[in-house]
Amino acid sequence: MAIKVYGHPFSPAAKRVLVALAEKGLDYEHILIDLATGQQKKEPLISINPFGQVPGFEDGDLQLFESRAITRYIAHAYADKGTPLLSEDPKKLAVIGVWLEVEAQKFDAAGQKLSFEILVKPIKGLPVDDAVIEEGKAQLASVLDIYEARLGKSKYLGGDDFSLADLHHIPIVANLQKTKVKAVFDARPAVAAWATALLARPAWQKINAA
Amino acid sequence: MAIKVYGHPFSPAAKRVLVALAEKGLDYEHILIDLATGQQKKEPLISINPFGQVPGFEDGDLQLFESRAITRYIAHAYADKGTPLLSEDPKKLAVIGVWLEVEAQKFDAAGQKLSFEILVKPIKGLPVDDAVIEEGKAQLASVLDIYEARLGKSKYLGGDDFSLADLHHIPIVANLQKTKVKAVFDARPAVAAWATALLARPAWQKINAA
Repeated sequence: MAIKVYGHPFSPAAKRVLVALAEKGLDYEHILIDLATGQQKKEPLISINPFGQVPGFEDGDLQLFESRAITRYIAHAYADKGTPLLSEDPKKLAVIGVWLEVEAQKFDAAGQKLSFEILVKPIKGLPVDDAVIEEGKAQLASVLDIYEARLGKSKYLGGDDFSLADLHHIPIVANLQKTKVKAVFDARPAVAAWATALLARPAWQKINAA
Repeated sequence: MAIKVYGHPFSPAAKRVLVALAEKGLDYEHILIDLATGQQKKEPLISINPFGQVPGFEDGDLQLFESRAITRYIAHAYADKGTPLLSEDPKKLAVIGVWLEVEAQKFDAAGQKLSFEILVKPIKGLPVDDAVIEEGKAQLASVLDIYEARLGKSKYLGGDDFSLADLHHIPIVANLQKTKVKAVFDARPAVAAWATALLARPAWQKINAA
């Protein structure tokens, strides 16, 4: 099999790659990296990702890391397969690109903070800090206010069609929707409908059923 | 004039856009946004960037924000002008994409922390925290260790040719090289040579002379 993903089911970044592959209908081999024993800092992953983090990715002799670079490669190299995730039109692609950056620079900071505090800390037996949760919720709310305005003008962030800009949000949106932070989404009707549409995608259902 | 940049000389993100335009040899109109009076939260910029930050960008009727999305648009839409900044080959483009993400996710966090503490705080009359500087230097050092290994294998981060992945570093590298953090670069020969090559680029010289 040509495509290999080195991942872990708890990693939103690894899931971002899996959902992109599922949208494209591509087959892949999933290699489980045991994060608890630090396998991500050892071979074979450390030769693929010198930062020692999941996901790692191989497509034949091409080795990549950083989830957002991997998904962009998948979207571009397999443009003719499955769901189109980027546009051929430079201006439409540029607008998708803006919202790809907004996810990486704005949404992810708030989302990761909340995911870590609410979901990861209890698993690790660490004390949860309510002040950090409140700070994260306020940060997320200010980002989602802008999403609400945007999604009032176009069905998806990058335009009228689902794109990689929406896809990159899915794993963290799914995590947050399981928590009390769901209320921050639900308070904004266009955002709530968008989140529901993302989580209902067959590609997301498929990788969670696997 | 078709291209407009809404920026400020103290903004590394705005400079990232200007250096990309200079590498492409494109003309543009620069509109100075007075950050001290909060002009970035007002029209015309707030309609271009709902987050109220520089840079904003216009190319005819296309409006963009987020510096890295703007530079990617410039590199793609003006592929045949000036310096090639991305590759036509999907695999080479994917490797450039990995290092674009490394800059945004790893280098920038350390670089912004150090820039803010060492350069911005004194201008704002805020007390400098030496512990934050030491933490930022350690964070930067661990990123630059990986750059040193990478730059021992290829002349630039994305491959043997200068690309957008290198370009995105220039404004923060230039800021840090003016400070004691230069030693963190100089301790790594390949990184030091790379930083020198970046700052010597005519496009960077040109926008600083303007």
